[in-house]
Amino acid sequence: MLNRMVPAMSILSAAAFLTAAPPLQAQQQDQPDWCKSKWGPDDEIGAANLITPESVLEAAKLITTGKAYALGGETNSKTPAFAPRTWSTIVLQPGQVGGVTLGPTQSSYNDDIHMGWVGTGSQIDGLGHLGVDNVYYNCNKAADFAKADGLTKLGIEKIPPLVARGVVLDMTAVSGQNPIPEGTAFNKAEIDAALEKQGIEIRKGDVVLFHTGWQSLVGQDDEKFISAEPGLGKEGAEYLASKEVLAVGADTWGLEAVPFEEGVGVFEIHQILLARNGIYILENMNTAELVNDQAWEFMFVEGHGRITGGVQAIINPIAIR
Amino acid sequence: MLNRMVPAMSILSAAAFLTAAPPLQAQQQDQPDWCKSKWGPDDEIGAANLITPESVLEAAKLITTGKAYALGGETNSKTPAFAPRTWSTIVLQPGQVGGVTLGPTQSSYNDDIHMGWVGTGSQIDGLGHLGVDNVYYNCNKAADFAKADGLTKLGIEKIPPLVARGVVLDMTAVSGQNPIPEGTAFNKAEIDAALEKQGIEIRKGDVVLFHTGWQSLVGQDDEKFISAEPGLGKEGAEYLASKEVLAVGADTWGLEAVPFEEGVGVFEIHQILLARNGIYILENMNTAELVNDQAWEFMFVEGHGRITGGVQAIINPIAIR
Amino acid sequence: MLNRMVPAMSILSAAAFLTAAPPLQAQQQDQPDWCKSKWGPDDEIGAANLITPESVLEAAKLITTGKAYALGGETNSKTPAFAPRTWSTIVLQPGQVGGVTLGPTQSSYNDDIHMGWVGTGSQIDGLGHLGVDNVYYNCNKAADFAKADGLTKLGIEKIPPLVARGVVLDMTAVSGQNPIPEGTAFNKAEIDAALEKQGIEIRKGDVVLFHTGWQSLVGQDDEKFISAEPGLGKEGAEYLASKEVLAVGADTWGLEAVPFEEGVGVFEIHQILLARNGIYILENMNTAELVNDQAWEFMFVEGHGRITGGVQAIINPIAIR
Amino acid sequence: MLNRMVPAMSILSAAAFLTAAPPLQAQQQDQPDWCKSKWGPDDEIGAANLITPESVLEAAKLITTGKAYALGGETNSKTPAFAPRTWSTIVLQPGQVGGVTLGPTQSSYNDDIHMGWVGTGSQIDGLGHLGVDNVYYNCNKAADFAKADGLTKLGIEKIPPLVARGVVLDMTAVSGQNPIPEGTAFNKAEIDAALEKQGIEIRKGDVVLFHTGWQSLVGQDDEKFISAEPGLGKEGAEYLASKEVLAVGADTWGLEAVPFEEGVGVFEIHQILLARNGIYILENMNTAELVNDQAWEFMFVEGHGRITGGVQAIINPIAIR
Repeated sequence: MLNRMVPAMSILSAAAFLTAAPPLQAQQQDQPDWCKSKWGPDDEIGAANLITPESVLEAAKLITTGKAYALGGETNSKTPAFAPRTWSTIVLQPGQVGGVTLGPTQSSYNDDIHMGWVGTGSQIDGLGHLGVDNVYYNCNKAADFAKADGLTKLGIEKIPPLVARGVVLDMTAVSGQNPIPEGTAFNKAEIDAALEKQGIEIRKGDVVLFHTGWQSLVGQDDEKFISAEPGLGKEGAEYLASKEVLAVGADTWGLEAVPFEEGVGVFEIHQILLARNGIYILENMNTAELVNDQAWEFMFVEGHGRITGGVQAIINPIAIR
Repeated sequence: MLNRMVPAMSILSAAAFLTAAPPLQAQQQDQPDWCKSKWGPDDEIGAANLITPESVLEAAKLITTGKAYALGGETNSKTPAFAPRTWSTIVLQPGQVGGVTLGPTQSSYNDDIHMGWVGTGSQIDGLGHLGVDNVYYNCNKAADFAKADGLTKLGIEKIPPLVARGVVLDMTAVSGQNPIPEGTAFNKAEIDAALEKQGIEIRKGDVVLFHTGWQSLVGQDDEKFISAEPGLGKEGAEYLASKEVLAVGADTWGLEAVPFEEGVGVFEIHQILLARNGIYILENMNTAELVNDQAWEFMFVEGHGRITGGVQAIINPIAIR
Repeated sequence: MLNRMVPAMSILSAAAFLTAAPPLQAQQQDQPDWCKSKWGPDDEIGAANLITPESVLEAAKLITTGKAYALGGETNSKTPAFAPRTWSTIVLQPGQVGGVTLGPTQSSYNDDIHMGWVGTGSQIDGLGHLGVDNVYYNCNKAADFAKADGLTKLGIEKIPPLVARGVVLDMTAVSGQNPIPEGTAFNKAEIDAALEKQGIEIRKGDVVLFHTGWQSLVGQDDEKFISAEPGLGKEGAEYLASKEVLAVGADTWGLEAVPFEEGVGVFEIHQILLARNGIYILENMNTAELVNDQAWEFMFVEGHGRITGGVQAIINPIAIR
Repeated sequence: MLNRMVPAMSILSAAAFLTAAPPLQAQQQDQPDWCKSKWGPDDEIGAANLITPESVLEAAKLITTGKAYALGGETNSKTPAFAPRTWSTIVLQPGQVGGVTLGPTQSSYNDDIHMGWVGTGSQIDGLGHLGVDNVYYNCNKAADFAKADGLTKLGIEKIPPLVARGVVLDMTAVSGQNPIPEGTAFNKAEIDAALEKQGIEIRKGDVVLFHTGWQSLVGQDDEKFISAEPGLGKEGAEYLASKEVLAVGADTWGLEAVPFEEGVGVFEIHQILLARNGIYILENMNTAELVNDQAWEFMFVEGHGRITGGVQAIINPIAIR
């Protein structure tokens, strides 16, 4: 009666159903030309390849006053973030209930826990964050590397120390408005205008930050802040990519102009920078003090907690000049 | 019949029971002398006060080769951590179920979530992490500032950019063992021996890192790794404090010698550094490459995600020389 | 030179510092009389001992119409909760990025994650929830059983199936107000008035639910809802305890009258029920439909996810009559 | 110069990109016949429609001994679960650091937090859990209802009280093996054999539980436990669906035979029950005590925390007889 009960297959891991050979869709999809990296088929760090001992030494020459700037702002449960992102921090005192202390010198300690979406507040977008139809930087297909417990490629733990020349562009001076209205796009003309006004240039391997004044809305009008923003336009993104920059950031939540420019796709600037060119994106950067000091050039140093397989990281890059 | 039903009090927030005037215990507790900060009664950043434009310029002079080192290691669900700390990362694709993409250029994206204890992997201990009988740096009483949803004082968001001269002490060369056995304590004699051997000195405002080889146990013998460690001794901690350093770190999970030295309390070195002297602690630092390169001196730059009210932060400081 | 480096102690687990022999305070604290359970020194389930085959059979006799009521309401990120409790649910599709499906029949699936405080929405308070100066039900000291990764005693996984006679008391009919104003206390007179009006009695082993109309504020005036409530008074709690009930609940967030009655301590009713008498507390119960149907008596059945070491559980008890 | 800076569109919510009109794919996909519910196009509860006052009254008649069974087991960080599911519970004492107590009667309390995947341990699969190529029960398309912060349809908060006749089938008695080997499939012949042996029948609206002995592997050989299982076969699933049952469960992690029967798809039994027939699935049920008592028939009562938009729930159904 139980003749059907003889298992026909050997014991398999159930998880294997999800991690088996690349799915058919993926296999059949040829690698489009746009996604191939100039740094070779195995590259996972994109424009970070531009960092060399020479470029670091050049950047170090920008340290002339000894002032250091924290470019990251605070992240907490009230930080406005792209839906449905939320954040929660918990502080507790393990093993100390009722006032128990540890040992003869009565140690007591606090510990903390994070429960939250990484894309909350000041952040870096890793190269595994955004792609084109599930194809990411260097032709990595999401089905191959985007596992539910972490990316197996392009994770933020692989980003080397980001040490580079940084420049900040005061777009409010170009625009004459502060904050600059939402949807305003920064393209070649606007970028060049800012460079000229400030008397600086963008060089290969630079970190370029836009100051728009938009961050001043946080805590004042969070709904307006998170629903739109001024930012980089499509032509501007391609212009910066042609200059081979390392990273592009702004004092906004998403870098690019929202509402998007006419004829420009949803987060297409992210596609141009991250997926097509391996250029990192920095969001919610505190650029105000740099601008106030007219600190147009500086040494930029960024190192973030290396969470294995992370997509983004909450950051606080340091500008030193 | 319902005569008792007239509320005698006005409407109060229930949470008020927990946040009302300082509890009696706290009020009665006088401020002991040991906890008063030399930087004044309102200070929350301790030895970070030592960072000045001059000290930053001095540190920048150490950049001579252009090589940058990532001092942070990876953190993930397998990282051995002090019980009951755990870590979990989740990657998902909001709004893209079934392969939906966004807009005409077909954007797709990954997002990530953290669920975990911050004290996992490479970390900085903020000044609100460990105290003496619930009194923390600068006489802050835990009942006053350690709220369940975040510290209201001494949070890691308040730490300014940590830019300083860094030195690494190769204790394996002094000890002749690699890794150095657990419980081995580094005191004045051992510290001076390393300095002499390497031909360097410790200066005011320095970040001092100990290399013990202990990190090599991770992934090889996690149980041994996390149950003990070589590290700083009590006299050594007081010695470093007397030199007015900014931070002390090591390639171990808890910096100090465990099992603790005879006569030394449970995490008493943490008390000496954090609570008594406002000196930061750096744990699970990747010191091996620095030692391999004999990079005894370097510019140390650390900026971490500024989680409001955070106790610790997962970090990746950058050493540049 | 390294003579101090010989470890004097054997290798210890660092966690041992927190879990070693009961701390001195605890040892010295004698067991007060009030906390001893009538069900013996090892008892962890309190009034659940009252459930017997006979009592279950009696309760089953109350099933006469076949109508089942869900006494639990919904819990989500908007549910008003005692600070700083929050709730977050995440839905994702592991292994299916880009529309990948599993196997020849193209399975696709959603999975979900909880990040949140258990005391959010409809809940049962286990006997490990609230005590008197860190002494809980049956003289259990918090330092002994309240570990950071779960209670080692009194956890909600130990609560047996709660099957009993349930009664609902329509306090709005007694009070003449709906919702009943905050701070209104239900004591012996009010309880007896409701019983008399409804023609029922409270029996040993019963689950007693109070209907106040307060739940109707949720979503209408969350701030008012969570800052106060009508509820059980001290005399009323002792009255119910004298009747040896199994559990007491209400359509409020905290059962007891808030602001507290004059001369009554902070959550003293919780102390009387949970700690002194081992009687469970049920919060945010949906009592409206029972009252609307005049379903004064019913069979009450409650089983919750048995999270090991849990303090509370989000519940949906079923009333059947 | 800034002529491009006039936003062409009105301010939009960024989130709108993700929640706008149904994506093209979804719109073009016609509703296949297989997914239409017999309970109408708006139905979200499937076989729970079978519960009527009459069926509840019938089930209540099965209560004859007054014994109640907890069918849910414990869930904790060690519970073996389908990868990459994990679970973590945290216990803390908000506002009580250093032994602070609340008010004159010195209240102290524990609170708890969940961080984990719901599909860990004893669970119910809601109708939004598993579908066919992103089409779920009643032709609901994932892109329309599976939002990252919760399902907008088919959520577990909508499941009414599951009160029904329950039956347990002792498959170990049929098989002669305990536990029954992995991959063993229960089809019509095996189900009928069990029914005949036990002298019972399956009726419309029943909850059917299979006892396989597989749960005994938990804690003994977790890897074997979670990598395979005996269970329901395809013909058996269709047989039970033809009998119009309410729910099907087992003492295994995934109900169905794994490795899957030859010619049967990945989790195809889930598709047959959940998506095609609106029949609930119950996993990791504790059936041993029922079998030991030969409690073949019982009243089944299940109510779970009603997390809005939840996919699954950790449960503890109560069997009463």
